[in-house]
Amino acid sequence: MNFKKLLLKAHFRIAPYIHNTAVLTSKTINTICNSQLYFKCENFQKMGAFKMRGATNALLQLTPNQKEKGVVTHSSGNFAQAVALAARNIGIKAYIVMPKNAPQVKKEAVIGYGGIVIESDSTPIAREQKAEEVMKETGATFVHPSNDIPVIIGQGTATMELLNLYPDLEAVITPVGGGGLLAGTALAVHFFGKNCQTFAGEPDEANDAYRSLKSGKIESNKTTNTIADGLRTQLGNNNFPIIQKYVSAIICVSEEEIIRAMKLIWERLKIVVEPSSAVAFAALLKEKESFKNKKIGVILSGGNVDLTNLPF
Amino acid sequence: MNFKKLLLKAHFRIAPYIHNTAVLTSKTINTICNSQLYFKCENFQKMGAFKMRGATNALLQLTPNQKEKGVVTHSSGNFAQAVALAARNIGIKAYIVMPKNAPQVKKEAVIGYGGIVIESDSTPIAREQKAEEVMKETGATFVHPSNDIPVIIGQGTATMELLNLYPDLEAVITPVGGGGLLAGTALAVHFFGKNCQTFAGEPDEANDAYRSLKSGKIESNKTTNTIADGLRTQLGNNNFPIIQKYVSAIICVSEEEIIRAMKLIWERLKIVVEPSSAVAFAALLKEKESFKNKKIGVILSGGNVDLTNLPF
Repeated sequence: MNFKKLLLKAHFRIAPYIHNTAVLTSKTINTICNSQLYFKCENFQKMGAFKMRGATNALLQLTPNQKEKGVVTHSSGNFAQAVALAARNIGIKAYIVMPKNAPQVKKEAVIGYGGIVIESDSTPIAREQKAEEVMKETGATFVHPSNDIPVIIGQGTATMELLNLYPDLEAVITPVGGGGLLAGTALAVHFFGKNCQTFAGEPDEANDAYRSLKSGKIESNKTTNTIADGLRTQLGNNNFPIIQKYVSAIICVSEEEIIRAMKLIWERLKIVVEPSSAVAFAALLKEKESFKNKKIGVILSGGNVDLTNLPF
Repeated sequence: MNFKKLLLKAHFRIAPYIHNTAVLTSKTINTICNSQLYFKCENFQKMGAFKMRGATNALLQLTPNQKEKGVVTHSSGNFAQAVALAARNIGIKAYIVMPKNAPQVKKEAVIGYGGIVIESDSTPIAREQKAEEVMKETGATFVHPSNDIPVIIGQGTATMELLNLYPDLEAVITPVGGGGLLAGTALAVHFFGKNCQTFAGEPDEANDAYRSLKSGKIESNKTTNTIADGLRTQLGNNNFPIIQKYVSAIICVSEEEIIRAMKLIWERLKIVVEPSSAVAFAALLKEKESFKNKKIGVILSGGNVDLTNLPF
């Protein structure tokens, strides 16, 4: 596959539907890290997370026949809202399979963006089965939150924008959960960076990607007991080979390190980011000696957080 | 006084020392208000608040002899940090009189910016006396947080930047505490807006400015029992006549309205603002029928908030 061409096409395809988000810096944070950090603020993205990029890129490439029948996905997180909003933007139906026990506020957010919520039991298998049922009944096309190539490519556009502004970045770091953002970022760094490397931060409590890179095959999470709720998912067969080929290292961080990094972002950048977003910065803080004196892009993945239930 | 000329000079004088802060918008908030809001993000300003503008403008105009002896102010809020940082930026001493019982974190912030903290008892009179003592001992020049003309003029530059980007704003709204930001904003709107009016939001619990406009003389606060801790101060003899002449109305809001507005800003703009910042937006929400279909600038005054003690 010509990933470079796919990235360039996606960049222009989705531009009218997304924000080219701001990049923030902080002298205090640079002093703490002894490096120059450029925070790409996907918390300012439409619906509040980078997921809007991949969802939009996937939906815009549907055939007219597919568009008529709509799309289906299963997610209780940001991808649910992203598909709902991207679908509304281009005038198609979106069926979102969500677990019965998902917070009401998340269901309402999807409905607010025009999505059709379909409830399932909360196990991964039950959710997949329900999605298949919907596909059969409606003819809707399934879109995977992190493993479909158009989704992966769409997520890479955040880093294309970042490198466009700061072409001499020496590293870009993202959080890793399902692997879509990390794979897309690694491709963008490979094709549009100059001597630039890709890194990821991952919670100790959901370190499937770290162990997968070590073992050379997709490993399962042993626990998902992390505050970084967007990172409890597993790698997929499409994004894993890309991650193997193009990612330099994955750095694991504790819950305490995630919360400390999150608080520092809120205090110093004066922005609201979700715990998953803080994982990449937490990894940088942990390994700051390795990144000393470097210019580094940090992808802040999203800002959808329950303000009444903060960890500090 | 030629306020227009003072504003223009200040705009260029302070530019190297401050951020021309971002302006954010939100479709959801515009839908809620039925108007177009442009949020000027002074929470992203250096040291986290608009106070950096006025402090910088005042300090840059000191004579060489004054610079040698430094400056003194009394503040336990953002102005303390602003004077400390502005002084460090131009290489002069800053003596900051702070009440003994001020939170340690605030004292440390001032010290972190290179300020010399001098403790006093917590009554306004004790603080003023201590500042006078420091002036006598050191020869330092006193800078008032909201009533000195160079400070008032400096605060107006935020609105100059906003009107530069959006020249057709029909209203600009700020919070009002000591009156420096409101007076500076009103001058900027008068001299650089086109058919644009200035409004302010004020807490019911510290509504001295509202009552002063009604009575035609400077009134005292009867209570200062508001979460908007930056707005507990009183108008001054320099800013009040400007406010009388150029401000269209002051809208008072309850504590509940302030907290609701603050939460909406955090949730939708994904930024951290302090309660005082939310007061202007709370006033707009309260009077949204009056502002219907208008293009309105909202000055978000700062983002220095204790994340471990949020009201929601």
